Amino acid sequence: MQEIFAKDPEFEPAIFVEQTREQARPHATMLLRKLHSEILRRGIFTPQQVIDEHEKYLMCQNTPRGHVALIIKQTLHFAMFLKAIVNLGANDYHKRLMQEAARMDFIGCFAMTELSHGSNVMELRTTATFDEKTKEFVINTPTDNDIKVWIGNLAKDARYALLWARLITQGKDHGVHPFVIQIRDSIYHKPLPGLLIGDMGMKVGYQNMDNGFLRFNNFRVPRDTLLSKFFQVLDDGTYKTEIASKTKRLGFFLQTLSYSRILLGLGAANGNLYANIIALRFAHMRKQFGVPGEPERPLASYQLHQYRLLPKFCQAFVIRFSVDEILQYYITMKPQVVDPTKTLEFLHAICTFTKVYASTCAHNTYLEARQSLGGFGYSYYSEMYQMITYNDVNLTWEGDNKVLLQQTARYIMKNCNRILTGKDVTDQQVKYLKDIHTDKAKFVAKIGDLDLGEEDLKLEDILEIYRVFAANCGFKAMKHFTKGLEEGQDMFDVYLNSVPVILNTMAIAFGEVYYIEAYLRRIAHCKDGPTKRVFEKMGLLYALWNMTERAGDFRNENLISSDQLSQAKDRVLSLLKELIHEAIPLTHLPPWEWYNPFAHEDFYERFLGQVVRADGAFERSRIWKEMLAPEGEPQKK
Amino acid sequence: MQEIFAKDPEFEPAIFVEQTREQARPHATMLLRKLHSEILRRGIFTPQQVIDEHEKYLMCQNTPRGHVALIIKQTLHFAMFLKAIVNLGANDYHKRLMQEAARMDFIGCFAMTELSHGSNVMELRTTATFDEKTKEFVINTPTDNDIKVWIGNLAKDARYALLWARLITQGKDHGVHPFVIQIRDSIYHKPLPGLLIGDMGMKVGYQNMDNGFLRFNNFRVPRDTLLSKFFQVLDDGTYKTEIASKTKRLGFFLQTLSYSRILLGLGAANGNLYANIIALRFAHMRKQFGVPGEPERPLASYQLHQYRLLPKFCQAFVIRFSVDEILQYYITMKPQVVDPTKTLEFLHAICTFTKVYASTCAHNTYLEARQSLGGFGYSYYSEMYQMITYNDVNLTWEGDNKVLLQQTARYIMKNCNRILTGKDVTDQQVKYLKDIHTDKAKFVAKIGDLDLGEEDLKLEDILEIYRVFAANCGFKAMKHFTKGLEEGQDMFDVYLNSVPVILNTMAIAFGEVYYIEAYLRRIAHCKDGPTKRVFEKMGLLYALWNMTERAGDFRNENLISSDQLSQAKDRVLSLLKELIHEAIPLTHLPPWEWYNPFAHEDFYERFLGQVVRADGAFERSRIWKEMLAPEGEPQKK
Repeated sequence: MQEIFAKDPEFEPAIFVEQTREQARPHATMLLRKLHSEILRRGIFTPQQVIDEHEKYLMCQNTPRGHVALIIKQTLHFAMFLKAIVNLGANDYHKRLMQEAARMDFIGCFAMTELSHGSNVMELRTTATFDEKTKEFVINTPTDNDIKVWIGNLAKDARYALLWARLITQGKDHGVHPFVIQIRDSIYHKPLPGLLIGDMGMKVGYQNMDNGFLRFNNFRVPRDTLLSKFFQVLDDGTYKTEIASKTKRLGFFLQTLSYSRILLGLGAANGNLYANIIALRFAHMRKQFGVPGEPERPLASYQLHQYRLLPKFCQAFVIRFSVDEILQYYITMKPQVVDPTKTLEFLHAICTFTKVYASTCAHNTYLEARQSLGGFGYSYYSEMYQMITYNDVNLTWEGDNKVLLQQTARYIMKNCNRILTGKDVTDQQVKYLKDIHTDKAKFVAKIGDLDLGEEDLKLEDILEIYRVFAANCGFKAMKHFTKGLEEGQDMFDVYLNSVPVILNTMAIAFGEVYYIEAYLRRIAHCKDGPTKRVFEKMGLLYALWNMTERAGDFRNENLISSDQLSQAKDRVLSLLKELIHEAIPLTHLPPWEWYNPFAHEDFYERFLGQVVRADGAFERSRIWKEMLAPEGEPQKK
Repeated sequence: MQEIFAKDPEFEPAIFVEQTREQARPHATMLLRKLHSEILRRGIFTPQQVIDEHEKYLMCQNTPRGHVALIIKQTLHFAMFLKAIVNLGANDYHKRLMQEAARMDFIGCFAMTELSHGSNVMELRTTATFDEKTKEFVINTPTDNDIKVWIGNLAKDARYALLWARLITQGKDHGVHPFVIQIRDSIYHKPLPGLLIGDMGMKVGYQNMDNGFLRFNNFRVPRDTLLSKFFQVLDDGTYKTEIASKTKRLGFFLQTLSYSRILLGLGAANGNLYANIIALRFAHMRKQFGVPGEPERPLASYQLHQYRLLPKFCQAFVIRFSVDEILQYYITMKPQVVDPTKTLEFLHAICTFTKVYASTCAHNTYLEARQSLGGFGYSYYSEMYQMITYNDVNLTWEGDNKVLLQQTARYIMKNCNRILTGKDVTDQQVKYLKDIHTDKAKFVAKIGDLDLGEEDLKLEDILEIYRVFAANCGFKAMKHFTKGLEEGQDMFDVYLNSVPVILNTMAIAFGEVYYIEAYLRRIAHCKDGPTKRVFEKMGLLYALWNMTERAGDFRNENLISSDQLSQAKDRVLSLLKELIHEAIPLTHLPPWEWYNPFAHEDFYERFLGQVVRADGAFERSRIWKEMLAPEGEPQKK
């Protein structure tokens, strides 16, 4: 796939092209369609394969970073719009649209968010009322506050929309349902009558994405627009379904979309690695300061610089390996995901954590990497700010990261509650919670014996600390919860008043345990001894550094002592010194990513070359006449 | 001053105007000149006052946030270019340029940074070699790696440059010196022969700033271009000065610029407050989720949301009050600042800390505030990303924040060393270091007795913890340092290997002590009892929250116990609940800041109004014909 990008001048990396929003958007659309038609023409995928294996399609594209901003347009069309039809569609109209979408005859959008409802999907207000006479749905936006907003692909491109609206039949509200509707005509590409479609205006990042708003005014659509695999509306408006409750229905719809959380996590993990690689390569090239009289030293030789980059570099590997495992797991579970009788709690908990953790860590990496490049980090040619803005939205969409973690927290609390009431855990992945609860003293004693500065310390040992920490968080939360209820507080309030300090810490602890386990499983496959040792050290550096970063939490109830914390800090510093050289082979970039001048030994030359070749580099000010001196000033030349 | 902005349609807040880089730059220049000529015309300042009181001039402008990006262009011209001439200039040429610069007959730039030397100013490579025959300096850029880069105002606007170059006379290098030179002619506004001036290209943020690069090729300038107040070059090339060492000279040049660190801190502090106010006002307006069946609740009612916003809001007040005090202090010390026989160590240490702390905290506020606005935080109309990008550069210029803190750290280590060798501290502001060192047990015992959950707990009590913490950091660093030297390590290495973990923590601890003291001094003036109580609680929330955020550090050597940490956490939560309402009067905005739709109860209406009124809001895709269906598809409408 990279070949298509690498050999076509139209696919010049976006960092070298200065475009306004109005230029960037049609350009992206054109590239996306061109790319897709190349894929079909070369037979890399058939349209049917795009439908059946859209996960693979999106994975396989693995768009080079120079065009990473295209991924979201792609994802909205294939992983959100098309996937929803595949999972929830039933009739011939849906089948036809699937085929057309797979060929990209049109571009689709995913119309969920409204002006006054984002995270709270249950409360969306757009209505789709069944008219028994015409067998149509009449779609309406009750008030201006219920206008669909921020919908990607909508402002300019989309001809069809996957619409989320309240289904109303026989005067009864059945909750939010998915519809697939045409929104622009096929001749003039203008909004159909009854629709007001516009642009969300100036925004940050993703200038190539056309975010739009959409207002419905008695907009009529045929009955078959309802994605009716699991529920039908009969001629007289009778509503039939196997999923009885509104909440369960919505939960199921969202479950079918859990894949998008992994995709976001994967994108963030890839970007995280890339930014770390650029920053580390630059750190080995750039020299500054040194002992007076001696040559200047590379930034990479300074402990401060190692400290700001290397732990995040290791973390990026831990995340990348773990996301990969979760993706494989998702694919094996796919049949259950689209089965409304199954609830996949562990999958949901870990996908949610993955979206949150991968995007938050990437965010922190980008900010630090930008700073580590000094002033050069402001140049577009470094790609840092593109990465910052492209990822920043990941912190918000699909649910605000800090709010979303509650979904993971609920899973752990449920399991802790089962343990406390003598039941078994729901999944093997959290069996350690029960083990620790059964014999906590043994685990705590084992941790107390650890010398965290020891050179032979194993990641497995640190993992034990993480596990006990996670269990402590879980049972402490249960205690807090029970106490609140006993004091007569409202369940909703007790829960909410545990979020910032207790629940989010717990959710992260659970996820980090899983990630360290996944990392260990992955590096166990590594056959080359020295390489494996580097990976082990990298895991250690991540786990120890992370512990020192949140030392207040880990020292809670003196789980680790003040001395152990000092040992961990010292060990972190010694690992930095070793890994700054040993990790170099892992900063390799494939040829199609070589365009970034910051990745090279001859950075200064490449960077300057880019600067002087840019359009208008030597142009005089547009208002130069107004810049002249007032009369009377002595003139020079 | 705000009146000029508020009543002139040309000064429409920048958030409502979509501009390319090429449009934004001349527009900013025009606005800046218009603003300045208005100020002179109305007699608000005379040119001589601009020269004598440029601090006041810049302060008094207090540009509304809608045009905050102008401040940097202004600062470069007045606080960097003009100020350097005022402080270091001596001859008639300098005096004439001061007058012209004060009238803004031309725009100046400050040419320090080079391609391969940023933070390390000592090693700049541009040379100014004295030619005894012509009594001129010949300026050269030795290699491409020594080109001046990122110079603001240079690419398009500047006619003069404050140039930093190595002064060479009689074959001897006297180190980096300041020169003021003409770089563009006065008739065509083109670079003078011998200069290559260009644009740094696409970059992030400050699109209205014309960052440029500059290469010299045997560029000759008269002798009087040297800013010669403290050193002269005689006809035969003899170099005369009272400041003997190169390092001291450079230190003195930079000392005269310390004001710019306060200015940056002030700008960051103002922006920090503003972003907090916008986020808090939005949080009271925006409703989401709630107990099923009941009305949705405002975001501000959620503990999680309070937790992410309120501590930063309180911190912003602590910073704002402290920066103000430091600014006043600077003004009283001004005569000493420009006296090469004086070294102002405390002023330097606290100015440096202020630049670092104010910009880092603002950075964190902006990122969190953006997230707290959800998807709306991506709209330009929220101003969040403008604030993020405008401030981000503050983390880097004038020295990378994490590297720069060493300058503050050195001051504390020096004082700790004096104490350890039986001498007195250099300044009253760090007398507590000696007190604690003399009788540490007493202080530790006092802290041990504190109940941090106590409602009557005073900020003064917490201040004691901060002081002991700072002292511990200082003496621990000294111990680490001495140990390293005793082990035979190189001084440079011991020092550098203490930076990330020990020195930076120490520098921050010192600064926070001073900030809490300054905050207490400031709120002591508050006469209204209830208001004062709110300020006290805000100080408490800041100090306790900050302690829990860095609990690993504060629990070091068990300075505070696990129980005390829990008490602090609980007290933070109870303070959130009280302050979320009590702090509302402090979220007031002056009328000229009302333009931001996010600051209002009727946000949805204002925001939508802005969206639909924007240019091109309803325009069809530029490539709509290519978006049509291929032949054969059923057509609708």
